[in-house]
Amino acid sequence: MSEESILKQIKEANDIKKIDSEEYTKLAQEIRAFLLEHISETGGHLGSNLGAVELTMALHLFLDLPKDKIIWDVGHQSYTHKLLTGRMEGFDHLRQYGGMSGFPKRKESDCDCFDTGHSSTSISAGIGLVKARDLRGEDYTVVSVIGDGSLTGGMAYEALNNAAKLESNFIIILNDNNMSISENVGGVPNYLNSLRTAEGYLDLKEGVYQTLMKSKSGEAMASAIKRTKSAVKQIVIPGMLFEDMGIKYLGPVDGHDIGAMVRVLREARRVKNAVMIHVKTKKGKGYAPAEKHPARFHGAEPFDVETGMPKKVRTSPNYTDIFSTVMCRIGDSREDVVAITAAMPDGTGLKRFSNHYPERFFDVGIAEEHAVTFAAGLAAGGLKPVVAIYSSFLQRAYDQILHDVCIQNLPVVFAIDRAGLVGSDGETHQGIFDLSYLSMIPNMCLMAPKNKWELADMLHFAVAFDGPAALRYPRGKAYDGLHDFRSPIEYGKAEVICDESEICLIAVGSMVKTAVEVRERLKEQGHSCSLINARFVKPFDEECFKEMAGRHKLLVTLEENVATGGFGEQVSLSLNGICDPLVIALPDAYVEHGNVDLLKTECGIDADGILEKIKNRLG
Amino acid sequence: MSEESILKQIKEANDIKKIDSEEYTKLAQEIRAFLLEHISETGGHLGSNLGAVELTMALHLFLDLPKDKIIWDVGHQSYTHKLLTGRMEGFDHLRQYGGMSGFPKRKESDCDCFDTGHSSTSISAGIGLVKARDLRGEDYTVVSVIGDGSLTGGMAYEALNNAAKLESNFIIILNDNNMSISENVGGVPNYLNSLRTAEGYLDLKEGVYQTLMKSKSGEAMASAIKRTKSAVKQIVIPGMLFEDMGIKYLGPVDGHDIGAMVRVLREARRVKNAVMIHVKTKKGKGYAPAEKHPARFHGAEPFDVETGMPKKVRTSPNYTDIFSTVMCRIGDSREDVVAITAAMPDGTGLKRFSNHYPERFFDVGIAEEHAVTFAAGLAAGGLKPVVAIYSSFLQRAYDQILHDVCIQNLPVVFAIDRAGLVGSDGETHQGIFDLSYLSMIPNMCLMAPKNKWELADMLHFAVAFDGPAALRYPRGKAYDGLHDFRSPIEYGKAEVICDESEICLIAVGSMVKTAVEVRERLKEQGHSCSLINARFVKPFDEECFKEMAGRHKLLVTLEENVATGGFGEQVSLSLNGICDPLVIALPDAYVEHGNVDLLKTECGIDADGILEKIKNRLG
Repeated sequence: MSEESILKQIKEANDIKKIDSEEYTKLAQEIRAFLLEHISETGGHLGSNLGAVELTMALHLFLDLPKDKIIWDVGHQSYTHKLLTGRMEGFDHLRQYGGMSGFPKRKESDCDCFDTGHSSTSISAGIGLVKARDLRGEDYTVVSVIGDGSLTGGMAYEALNNAAKLESNFIIILNDNNMSISENVGGVPNYLNSLRTAEGYLDLKEGVYQTLMKSKSGEAMASAIKRTKSAVKQIVIPGMLFEDMGIKYLGPVDGHDIGAMVRVLREARRVKNAVMIHVKTKKGKGYAPAEKHPARFHGAEPFDVETGMPKKVRTSPNYTDIFSTVMCRIGDSREDVVAITAAMPDGTGLKRFSNHYPERFFDVGIAEEHAVTFAAGLAAGGLKPVVAIYSSFLQRAYDQILHDVCIQNLPVVFAIDRAGLVGSDGETHQGIFDLSYLSMIPNMCLMAPKNKWELADMLHFAVAFDGPAALRYPRGKAYDGLHDFRSPIEYGKAEVICDESEICLIAVGSMVKTAVEVRERLKEQGHSCSLINARFVKPFDEECFKEMAGRHKLLVTLEENVATGGFGEQVSLSLNGICDPLVIALPDAYVEHGNVDLLKTECGIDADGILEKIKNRLG
Repeated sequence: MSEESILKQIKEANDIKKIDSEEYTKLAQEIRAFLLEHISETGGHLGSNLGAVELTMALHLFLDLPKDKIIWDVGHQSYTHKLLTGRMEGFDHLRQYGGMSGFPKRKESDCDCFDTGHSSTSISAGIGLVKARDLRGEDYTVVSVIGDGSLTGGMAYEALNNAAKLESNFIIILNDNNMSISENVGGVPNYLNSLRTAEGYLDLKEGVYQTLMKSKSGEAMASAIKRTKSAVKQIVIPGMLFEDMGIKYLGPVDGHDIGAMVRVLREARRVKNAVMIHVKTKKGKGYAPAEKHPARFHGAEPFDVETGMPKKVRTSPNYTDIFSTVMCRIGDSREDVVAITAAMPDGTGLKRFSNHYPERFFDVGIAEEHAVTFAAGLAAGGLKPVVAIYSSFLQRAYDQILHDVCIQNLPVVFAIDRAGLVGSDGETHQGIFDLSYLSMIPNMCLMAPKNKWELADMLHFAVAFDGPAALRYPRGKAYDGLHDFRSPIEYGKAEVICDESEICLIAVGSMVKTAVEVRERLKEQGHSCSLINARFVKPFDEECFKEMAGRHKLLVTLEENVATGGFGEQVSLSLNGICDPLVIALPDAYVEHGNVDLLKTECGIDADGILEKIKNRLG
């Protein structure tokens, strides 16, 4: 920041309006420098924020916050919005425990009107605000800002379908960076590519008519065209798709030209219906490495600003890497195995599979529902689909898993990454419900690996399994302990790691590592302690657990999932009358952002917390 | 059936091809007569089946089953398909326990290639089959048949977006009856209305060009138009919306003209991409009462063919009626209460509310995801939305409840009808998972009423509650017993109905009625028995249950929900160390169609089954 920083003059919402318009370019530069400086330190979403600087400035110049409402779809592009609403200091602890969230949060600021995190929700929420405004006789402007990637999500279309009926103003900004997180796919993205600048088209419209009217046959045609509702409009105006649906369309407009955007916003607010402004932006704008490698700088770890390289070089593989490698190996040996991602080829590790077997790889866009039912279709057609979706995003496809895959008992494999606490993305992204929402589904087989080798073994098992099979594994470094324990995976069978007496720890997936530590410390305290790797959450190894319950004083279940509907609760019921297990699980609450180890401590599922609970229970 | 019945000549798939084409009209008549005769006896989906007779005949004439694949979206329009594939006898026990399903079932026939039940899945599944076919080097035709109503569901759009990329044949039939279940809503339905017959348009296309080319300015325009990808096509061909998305469009074609449909199917199969055939049909075709009252004859109870009136006149209200009445009363006293349905104004009972308060009623189409996030937006804007969706359909919005409503703790009321076993619709429609999928969501308040008065009281409570609140109630007649028990609803508090000793029954919602019977019979057998109405599943009344556990020999929980993640399992965990409750719940399995009482017996949750379990437990 230079001594005459403009950014520092902005202390709260609407302060940007005091800035001289000639200073906007400098302000944009300062914002970019600020974001780069901070995100390179803390990590965070870089590309989408660098791309939305001028768009956010234009919105803040045009709107009156917090009276007016901006809903940020997904929400990770809201950093400039946070800067312009007095949250500059928050960036020192961005996405850290107790610090500022990387997403809009109503509890953080009255300028954040709706929390987001998952994709494609903003238009639905926006229509809700519009209707509430009108019914309550209030007067404010509602703007939903949605990326082209989010527009591949079905609920955005459900919302557009309903937006078309509105009879009062609602502004949808399509923030089109022709990218989304990864490369975009499908009909509408292709369609967006075909939209060009509107200049000249409006003139053309009149011209077509007049020329046609000059001849007799032309006249008849013009009249025929007129009867075809809005056909002339469609020939000359880009955005026909949206206009066909009944959404007024303005644009495209340069998303880095503040003046142009403010002008089109003014025009948009005059519309007495839903209106879409198509804004073209460049992801990573102003920082060459981010412009060049949008996927890498989507959600970035701390990096060196000069080189763009991560500050910490990863020396050990994470679970995603293991999945990635094993999928390629499986793809090689089995021609019927196909892989599906919902816009996350990099994040899920399927990129390598796609390089090796492009014809057997499908990126369906941000469309988890379609992904799962598409997989069901592939399985019904005789293939073996592996659907790789993060735990919290798979929530979108709960009905499709239950209704399209599991009723028919179709052999679809679910590779569920980011299961358990994910850390800095916070509440919306914690993968802490999957053991519950998958366990209740009949026919489902549900596993969690204890370490990197077991992930490989379970993936092989799942692909060979003749029915729906899910494996869930956490974000981050793959545990490489317990490498001597690699007995073959058997359906519904747990793995006994240490067989002693007194206390029996039964741990699921990531909690096996924690259980090893807990066991060591219990041993130090003179306790005898068995350790069981559950392996299967559904069906779990009732026989083994009952046997253990019969000859231990205390049975403890450990899982990185909410207690309700989770592993321990189910085990507890099945052991009714035999023993009362101590259930270690996450509390019935959303877990905020922060370092995963801190969050585990906070939730009482770290070794210390577990030991204390065991001590209390032993009395 | 006359003695020279044509329908009876059809014993299996492809037999229809042996019928002389001059007999098609007669065959269609026979099918309609057969459907009317049988559905009026057994009940079932009438309107959609009467509308799809010729469409199904055309498909069976054109395709080679079971090699070729038809995916019926939703699936309740597949009766003619069942008739033409040798399942005529199945209609004697249609939708009855052990009898034929009202939906396509792979296990029923190899001509049913994909099970359906919920809306908007067929295109996704179809793309899966197409990709499997191509990758396996097979050669068959895949046809997805989707109604205009199902096209308002977001996942259909996710699928269209992906269908646009296909480079081999895939036929989508848009069965447009301009109706769906209720009146259709929104952008695309309006758009469909605007599509006319294509005649003349193709000529017009050339004409526009030629006329423009005659003048110099026209020439420039023609060239400008040419640069605008496919613009000329868009001016002259209906279906621009789909063409814009990259789906070839054919039609509209008369869905009661078999010859025309077979011709367009031939044309469609030549396309090397996804192609949509727009077929216009009349719901209820051929039976005047069904043509006139499509909602009433959507899913019909047995009726008199002459008059169209139900055979059994309902004398006592069902839960839907109670909800309907109370909503109107609440709407009258609270101006901030708004109501939302996803294409089910009649089924949910919101029709009356919509008549009284049209501006506060929203039918969003078959779009459960949008419905819930829209409600979140309404709540964020200061209103009090009541979202009425059937239990099994609300599964679609699991993520939206968790992510958009409950993280923000927004005061949205969920009125969940058809919770528990629903009967004749079977596996896809049983509402047996909601206690599990809602209990695990933090901030959720979850209730179930024991009788009709309690439904009213709980609805009032939910509307007054400052946070997300759900109430679930079953299909069918509202229980009117226990009318003397009407203590005010208190957050998280159970209701003690009988306080005795030895056995304590804790029942949820619909199971209170069953518990009354169980208790009477236990008393007859000399047992002392308490009865608790749980009222709240989340948060449940731990204090009360613990107190009861302390002074009863056996505690029994009763719920009409799967055990996994359900009420009893949660209570069991919370009573760890105090007692081991006997949990009465549904098994971990999908439950087929049939009479609800029979299904309860089969699942062991009827009074007899429960008594036996209690007896076993008492030893």
